[in-house]
Amino acid sequence: MPAEKRVEKITDMNHDFPQWYTDVVRKADLADYSETGGCIIVRPYGYGVWELIQAQLDAKFKETGHENMYMPMLIPESLLELEKDHVDGFAPEVAWVTHAGSEALTERLYVRPTSEPLFSAHFAKTIQSWRDLPRLYNQWCTVMRWEKTTRPFLRGREFLWQEGHTAHATAEESLAEALKILDIYATFSEEVLCIPVIKGQKTEREKFAGAQSTYTFEALMHDGKALQSGTTHDFGDKFARVFNIQYTSKDNKLQYAYQSSWGVSSRLIGALIMVHGDNNGLVLPPGIAPIQIMVVPIAAHKPGVTEKAEEIRANLAKTLRAKIDTTDHAPGWKFAECEMKGIPLRVEIGPKDMENGQCILVRRDTGEKITTQIENVTQKATELLEEIRQNLYARAKERLASQTFTAQSLPQLKSILDTTPGFVKAMWCGADACEVRVKEEATATSRCIPFTQENLSNTCFVCGEKAEKMVVWSRAY
Amino acid sequence: MPAEKRVEKITDMNHDFPQWYTDVVRKADLADYSETGGCIIVRPYGYGVWELIQAQLDAKFKETGHENMYMPMLIPESLLELEKDHVDGFAPEVAWVTHAGSEALTERLYVRPTSEPLFSAHFAKTIQSWRDLPRLYNQWCTVMRWEKTTRPFLRGREFLWQEGHTAHATAEESLAEALKILDIYATFSEEVLCIPVIKGQKTEREKFAGAQSTYTFEALMHDGKALQSGTTHDFGDKFARVFNIQYTSKDNKLQYAYQSSWGVSSRLIGALIMVHGDNNGLVLPPGIAPIQIMVVPIAAHKPGVTEKAEEIRANLAKTLRAKIDTTDHAPGWKFAECEMKGIPLRVEIGPKDMENGQCILVRRDTGEKITTQIENVTQKATELLEEIRQNLYARAKERLASQTFTAQSLPQLKSILDTTPGFVKAMWCGADACEVRVKEEATATSRCIPFTQENLSNTCFVCGEKAEKMVVWSRAY
Repeated sequence: MPAEKRVEKITDMNHDFPQWYTDVVRKADLADYSETGGCIIVRPYGYGVWELIQAQLDAKFKETGHENMYMPMLIPESLLELEKDHVDGFAPEVAWVTHAGSEALTERLYVRPTSEPLFSAHFAKTIQSWRDLPRLYNQWCTVMRWEKTTRPFLRGREFLWQEGHTAHATAEESLAEALKILDIYATFSEEVLCIPVIKGQKTEREKFAGAQSTYTFEALMHDGKALQSGTTHDFGDKFARVFNIQYTSKDNKLQYAYQSSWGVSSRLIGALIMVHGDNNGLVLPPGIAPIQIMVVPIAAHKPGVTEKAEEIRANLAKTLRAKIDTTDHAPGWKFAECEMKGIPLRVEIGPKDMENGQCILVRRDTGEKITTQIENVTQKATELLEEIRQNLYARAKERLASQTFTAQSLPQLKSILDTTPGFVKAMWCGADACEVRVKEEATATSRCIPFTQENLSNTCFVCGEKAEKMVVWSRAY
Repeated sequence: MPAEKRVEKITDMNHDFPQWYTDVVRKADLADYSETGGCIIVRPYGYGVWELIQAQLDAKFKETGHENMYMPMLIPESLLELEKDHVDGFAPEVAWVTHAGSEALTERLYVRPTSEPLFSAHFAKTIQSWRDLPRLYNQWCTVMRWEKTTRPFLRGREFLWQEGHTAHATAEESLAEALKILDIYATFSEEVLCIPVIKGQKTEREKFAGAQSTYTFEALMHDGKALQSGTTHDFGDKFARVFNIQYTSKDNKLQYAYQSSWGVSSRLIGALIMVHGDNNGLVLPPGIAPIQIMVVPIAAHKPGVTEKAEEIRANLAKTLRAKIDTTDHAPGWKFAECEMKGIPLRVEIGPKDMENGQCILVRRDTGEKITTQIENVTQKATELLEEIRQNLYARAKERLASQTFTAQSLPQLKSILDTTPGFVKAMWCGADACEVRVKEEATATSRCIPFTQENLSNTCFVCGEKAEKMVVWSRAY
């Protein structure tokens, strides 16, 4: 790819945030548009981020007793129709397979938007006794939802995700599972993705189609809009009653099982871009950066420079994801490329540095240059990566705090969102009508009823009736 | 699941091999039928095998410079139609998405049976210069082919696989890639899956729809039928000319790129079952066994037994995939279960053994019992797992040799396959008409033109004309 293409400036995020986002997705080689409308190609660099997310979450799921398995991607229409709320929620946006080869199918099949019906049918078939519980399953796959407007990683017709599906003996256990997984998600988001989140429960209006209750972790993007980053659902025995998932209890009674499901998706990559990115491109937290450190030789034609740079890379690569850029581009181009791709650290090494036994480490998050002895470079880089992780989180946490407001009335909420978008906390009476008014009059939605409640006032900010809960509101992706 | 279910005998493989196969798939908990006709549920134990296959092959792909990425699962009809041989081969068996929600699509989309069209379109868009080559891509996903008759893992409408897609500057490089990957596959098959294979080239008739040449590795199942275990394809510049994948060479000329593709699938699990399994169930090679060693406490109610068994498990688990069976089933049931699931080793530990500081290791492949000191159990188990690996391979290799024959005439080939099925080597003139006759008169197909050629005679075993190549023929899955 010619050099000019790379050093082209991306759109200023303060001028046109959506265009800045698209520029970063494309120019950091995360994804590309495909020949299939509304579906993206996840390019190797973007998929590398996904593989690192996947590996770490998968380890957490397995540590907590979950097993991976694989369900068919197509589901018969008759199975969708069994659970009423589920079909109402998903039927309008599923892709239908109607023919195979030149023949029409006798029953239409839909491409999974989520797989509750198949898991429920399988549970019904394979769970007989209390000994068969709990069932703790997960699958990594893609799902399809026929969205009208799409944006890479944020809203696509097909996206990468994992879906956990579990069955339990009691209502307490399925609820505990939904909350436990929410904690795994939120901890991963904060500690590895460096994205602070608010955890809470969805309102009735915003909960998953078919769930008894839905739990969510919500993050705030650079532009002050919220991103629902992942959800967990407690189904109680709703699906069990429809799919007839019954087991014989220890005291020999026939009982319905209780279920949960939960998922995060490649949306997390969208969150990474919009929380940490800047006008030079992507900024990746070290824990999910496919390249944690890039070695750039300066004046590479001078004797010994490339060899020394390669030696540094080889040393770094023993414990870090390290690469070297030996292309014939100018150093300035390579620096810009490292920045665009959000590589947390780069090493600059030239003839002068070599004379002094030194090299220069440059942080992507702050731009700071740190001179270090070559023999200490791995240790120093490792320390800096941890500092970068902490700094990215602290920075995002501070922004979250500065962009979180409270409102005592609907006009006040609207005014805040119109001028300084962010999260707005406000007391709510619990009535759906008030939630609808917020949507209609302020184009904002309830993000969640946070687990950590505050008592901002005793009255609903919409209707003035007695308040029940504090809710976080926002405009959202 | 009640105990009776497990200890039920499976069908004798010598009486009814297909039923034996199905019994093993179901009773070893590898897979189950789903609500979606022709599509299986890969259960956690079967998926565990797949994850181990995947991890090891993925590491090999990455070592050789390949990158993972992800393409959409749906492909527009217009893209299928570009390459004539490709559409002829795949159009009859693709699943068509025609509607989304309640609306008909303006262009039909098909669920990928393989993704050459999307990769080719992406290459055309993103490859401009020799600097952009080679492109070495892979994706792990599922594909869909609408088979009329299906069998778990062997032939399914949807199956797990990986598909590599590469683009190169020269014809030599795409050919070298196809051969290099075939070696990676075959080595993995022999060293990890313990399945000996014959490597060779497919005939024109048997090659992949759209390929210039197809390479294959073929294995022989217990019943003497062949299984095409994976293939690699050299496309030359066929797709490049259709999709217009051109690059500017170092000497500034516009040239077509050369491509390869290659894949293995969850069919490998079918091969594992049919090569190593026996009348007690599955026999898994240690390298892909989700549980390498199972600890079974004997007289677990006696003081200290379960604790000691757990101590052994914890020690084994430091380096091996070890589990303990603490369910309340009888030891005999647990042994049968270990055998059914093909767990390479089990450890028996009871009060008497404890007194002597000993435990008993039992090999799944030979049934041999080895008494060992408890403090040496991990070392002994590790040695035995390597012995099991070697024995499984040697045993399969010996059977392959004993089931490989030569034929000098078509009636002789037919007679061999009717009485002692296996691989039959025979000289072939290269004419498609002779290949067709073999299919019609002996219901056998050419498996490959082996890389290792022998000169069995100078004349074609079908027509008597001058022979060109030695071909391996067989009845096949």
